[in-house]
Amino acid sequence: MTEDQGRRRAGGRAARQAARAHDTTVHPPFLTRTMAPFEVLSEEGLALIEQNAETILEEVGLDFRGDADALRLLREAGADVDGERVRFPRGMCRRIVQASAPHEFWQVARNPARNVHIGGMSTVFAPAYGSPFVRDLDTGRRYGTIEDFRNFVKLAYLTPYLHHSGGTICEPVDLPVNKRHLDMVYSHMRWSDKPFMGSVTQPQRAQDTVDMARILFGADFLEENVVLISLINANSPLVWDSVMLGAARNYALANQATIITPFILAGAMSPVTAAAVCAQTLAEALGCMTFVQLVRPGAPVVLGSFASSISMQSGAPTFGTPEPALVLYAMAALARRLGVPFRSGGSLCGSKIPDAQAAYESAATLQPTVLAGVNFVLHAAGWLEGGLAMGYEKFILDVDQCGMMGVFIKGIDLSENGQALDAIRENGPGQHFLGTAHTLANFETAFYRSSVADNNSYEQWLEDGSQDAAQRANAVWKRMLAEYQAPPIDPGIDEALVDFIARRKASFPDSDV
Amino acid sequence: MTEDQGRRRAGGRAARQAARAHDTTVHPPFLTRTMAPFEVLSEEGLALIEQNAETILEEVGLDFRGDADALRLLREAGADVDGERVRFPRGMCRRIVQASAPHEFWQVARNPARNVHIGGMSTVFAPAYGSPFVRDLDTGRRYGTIEDFRNFVKLAYLTPYLHHSGGTICEPVDLPVNKRHLDMVYSHMRWSDKPFMGSVTQPQRAQDTVDMARILFGADFLEENVVLISLINANSPLVWDSVMLGAARNYALANQATIITPFILAGAMSPVTAAAVCAQTLAEALGCMTFVQLVRPGAPVVLGSFASSISMQSGAPTFGTPEPALVLYAMAALARRLGVPFRSGGSLCGSKIPDAQAAYESAATLQPTVLAGVNFVLHAAGWLEGGLAMGYEKFILDVDQCGMMGVFIKGIDLSENGQALDAIRENGPGQHFLGTAHTLANFETAFYRSSVADNNSYEQWLEDGSQDAAQRANAVWKRMLAEYQAPPIDPGIDEALVDFIARRKASFPDSDV
Repeated sequence: MTEDQGRRRAGGRAARQAARAHDTTVHPPFLTRTMAPFEVLSEEGLALIEQNAETILEEVGLDFRGDADALRLLREAGADVDGERVRFPRGMCRRIVQASAPHEFWQVARNPARNVHIGGMSTVFAPAYGSPFVRDLDTGRRYGTIEDFRNFVKLAYLTPYLHHSGGTICEPVDLPVNKRHLDMVYSHMRWSDKPFMGSVTQPQRAQDTVDMARILFGADFLEENVVLISLINANSPLVWDSVMLGAARNYALANQATIITPFILAGAMSPVTAAAVCAQTLAEALGCMTFVQLVRPGAPVVLGSFASSISMQSGAPTFGTPEPALVLYAMAALARRLGVPFRSGGSLCGSKIPDAQAAYESAATLQPTVLAGVNFVLHAAGWLEGGLAMGYEKFILDVDQCGMMGVFIKGIDLSENGQALDAIRENGPGQHFLGTAHTLANFETAFYRSSVADNNSYEQWLEDGSQDAAQRANAVWKRMLAEYQAPPIDPGIDEALVDFIARRKASFPDSDV
Repeated sequence: MTEDQGRRRAGGRAARQAARAHDTTVHPPFLTRTMAPFEVLSEEGLALIEQNAETILEEVGLDFRGDADALRLLREAGADVDGERVRFPRGMCRRIVQASAPHEFWQVARNPARNVHIGGMSTVFAPAYGSPFVRDLDTGRRYGTIEDFRNFVKLAYLTPYLHHSGGTICEPVDLPVNKRHLDMVYSHMRWSDKPFMGSVTQPQRAQDTVDMARILFGADFLEENVVLISLINANSPLVWDSVMLGAARNYALANQATIITPFILAGAMSPVTAAAVCAQTLAEALGCMTFVQLVRPGAPVVLGSFASSISMQSGAPTFGTPEPALVLYAMAALARRLGVPFRSGGSLCGSKIPDAQAAYESAATLQPTVLAGVNFVLHAAGWLEGGLAMGYEKFILDVDQCGMMGVFIKGIDLSENGQALDAIRENGPGQHFLGTAHTLANFETAFYRSSVADNNSYEQWLEDGSQDAAQRANAVWKRMLAEYQAPPIDPGIDEALVDFIARRKASFPDSDV
C-alpha cells in the first residue's frame, strides 16, 4: 500500500466515524407521517369486510373462556351468552368501542422527552417480542438469557430509530418462568428511559407490572397517564382465554393501554383468503376491545393485527409474502374507520439468518407497515425465524431501515432551499454540483447515512475484508454495547423497585409454568 | 435418521419440487395494477415542481450538443437557440409533447402472447442493464461475456415474473465494442420471444437494431407497430449529447419507442434536494421528448427517471435510501400529469454481493416502483454494486420479489370465495382450518410460493446444509439453464438475421470504441 492510499483510507474511515460520533441530528421521539396512507380496498370493500365481521360476531360469536366476570359484563351490555360462547347484536361492539375508546393517546416515559404519541399520523417503532432464542454471528443460535434481554434493552435505548423499549424482547430462559417478568420489567425501567410494555403471561404478572409502574411513576400518576402498553393476543380462531382476559382486565382497571391482537396464520387459524382474515381479525378484536371498554370505559385500546401466510406444503408460517401485506393495508384502513390506533407489521421474516431472504421479507413487511400508517410497530427490529430467534445483527440491520423510514415519511422539502432553483441557475449545463454553495450548505443532512451499508468501491470493499452486511452489523452492536451508559434514575426509586422484586420473588416458589 | 424422518423429508422435498414443476398458473404477460398510486406530494407541490421545470427550461435551458439538425428543429418550433444552448418559452415543451406523444402503447413481441402494454395501469419488469461485470457464487466477480449475456436472456425468458428481455443485460466484453450490439440484439431475438430493447451506443447501432427488427418482424410491420424500446440517457445536468440524440432520432424515424431518462446522482449531477432533482429531471426529459416529437410526431416516448443519492463522504452512489424513493413517487405523479408512460426504479442496490444490504436496498426501490405505478421497470432483476455487476443469484432473488409484486397488485379478492364467510361459520371458535373444504379448495393458489425462501423448521434447515438465500438461488439458476429450451423461430428469418450480422461485421474493422 502506498503512503497516499494509507492516508486516504485512514482519513476516510476516521472522518466517517467522527461524523457519526458527532452526529448532532435531533431525532424525534416518534415519527409523524405526512402522507395519506396507501389503500388497497375501496370504501365499498372496507364496508363489506365490516359487515362480514358483524356477521361473524352475530352468527358465530366468540368464545370467552374461563372468565365468568367477562361473560357477565358482556351479557349485561346486551350480548347473547350461551355457555362461554358470546354472540353480539350487529353494531353492538362498534358502538361500545366508539363510545369510549380514545382515538389516540400518549404513552409517558420516565424521561418525558421520550413520550410517544400513539394514533393518528404517529408511528412508534419497538423491538421484536417473544423469541425463546437469540442469534449472533459469534455464537450462533442459543436460548436467550437475562443478559441478552438487557443487551437488547440497551441497544434499543441507544438507537435513535426505535422509539420504544418493547416488552418480552427475548425470553430470559435462565430465569424461572413465574418470576422472569419482574426482571424483564425492571430491565426496561432501569436500563432505558424509553416507554415499555408490561407482562401478560398471567393476570398477576400484569398486576406486578402495574405495581412496579406505580413505584416508578407514582401511584396517582397512573390514574391520569398511560405508562404501560401491553400485548393481548387472541387464541384465534374466535377465542379469548382467561389469561389474556385477566391481563387485559388488570391493565384496563389501572387505565393502562392494551393492544388487542388476533394472531392469525392464515390457513390454520382462519381461512386462507385475505378478505376472510380481515373480517375475522376485526371481529375478534372488536369483541375483546368491547370487553376492555366494559371493564373501564376510556381505557386505551389499540387494534392489533398479526397475520401471516403459511406454507401450504409444510404448514410453516411464511413472512414477507404479498398476502399479509394486503391484509395489513386493509386492517389499517379498518382501524381508521373504527377510530382507534392500529398495531401491525414490523420487520418480519422466516429466514433463520440475516441473509437476503431475511432482508427481502423484512422490507416487504416494514414498507407496508409505514405506508399503511401503522401507529404502533412491534417487531420493528431483530426478528428472525418466524419469531423464534432474536438476532443481534438482524436488530442492527432492521434499525437502519427504521432510520430510513423516518426520513421517508417526512416527504419532500418544498422550501426555497429544497427547490434549489438558484443552484441550478448558477451551475448551468454540464457542470457538476459537488462543490456548489448549495451542496456544501446541505451536504451534512442531505442524505440518510446508513450505519451498515457499504458503498465504497469494490476494491476498497475487498481491502476491508469483503464483509457482508451481517458482519458489519456485528461490529456495530458490539461497539454500541461497549459505549453504553445507563440513563440516570432516582436512587430511592431504584431501591424501592429492587425491594419490591425481592419481596415478590421470596413470596412464592420458583416454577417453570 | 429414523425411517419416518426419511420418508417425511423425501416426501416433502419431492412434493415441493413436483408442485413447482407442474405449476399450471397462467402468468400474465405484464402486470395490471388495481390500486391508486401512493402519493408523496399534493397537487400544489406537483404544480410547483412543474413550474420550476419550466423556469429551468426558460432561464437556464438545455445544451443539445453536436447535433445541428436538433438545434434547427427546436429553433423552428419556437425555442431560443444560442450556440448549443436551447431555451424554451414556458409551456412549449409540454404543449408539444402533449400534442402528439401517446399516453400508452403496446410493444409487440415475436410471440404475440408476450406483447406488453406500456402506460396506464400496466407494469412491465425487465432485467438490469449495462453492467460490465457479472457475479456468481462459483466464480465471483468477472467481466461479462456473450455467454453470460445469452444466459441472462434465457433466464429472463424462463421466468414468468419478468415480462421483457431487456437490453444490454451485461456487456459482452469478449466481443469488440463496435460489433457486440449485433450479437446482443440477435440473442434477444433468437433465445427469447419476449420484447426487447435496442442499441443506443451509436446512432448507427440503433439503425442496425431497426434493420434487424425489420428482418424479424417485416419492414412494413414496424411502421404501424412498436417492436423496440430503447434507453436514451441524458448527460445530466442539462445536456443531451449527439450519440443519444442520434440514437433517439433513428428510433423515432422508425416509429419505435424511446425512454428519455435523465440519469442523476443527486449532489453530483443535480442539487442534493429531492424537489430540485424532480424539477431538473422533468426539464431534461421534456426537452428531449420535445425533440423526439419534432422528429416524428407520435413516436412513443417514455419519461424516465434514474435518481440516486450519493455518499457525501466518498461521492459513491448509494441505493435503496429514502431520498430516491421520494423522487420516484413524485416523478411518477409528474409523468401521469404530463400524460406519458413512466420508467424508473427496479431492484437497485450498492452492495457488491447478494446479502442483506442488497436485499434491503433492492426492496426499498422495488416497493416504491410498484406502489408509485411505474410502467416500465428496467433493472428489475440482477443489479449489484451500483450497476457495475450483474448477479446470477441476485437475478433469481429479485425475480422472486417480482413474482410477489404480481400477486400484491391484484389486491384483495372480494368474491364469495374470498370472503369465505361459510368457512368461518362452519368451523367455529377454536378449530383450525387446515382441513376445511375451503382451505382444500384454495390451497394450491392461496399463497405465493417462493422459489428461494426457506420456511422449513430450523432443524430441517440445518439438515439441508444451513444454506443462505444466495446459495439456494445458485441452484435455481443452474437448474433453469439446464432445462432451457429455445423458443422456435422461422429458419428463414434466423438465416437472414445471421447473414445480416455477418455482412455488417465484415463491412468495418473491429474497434474497442
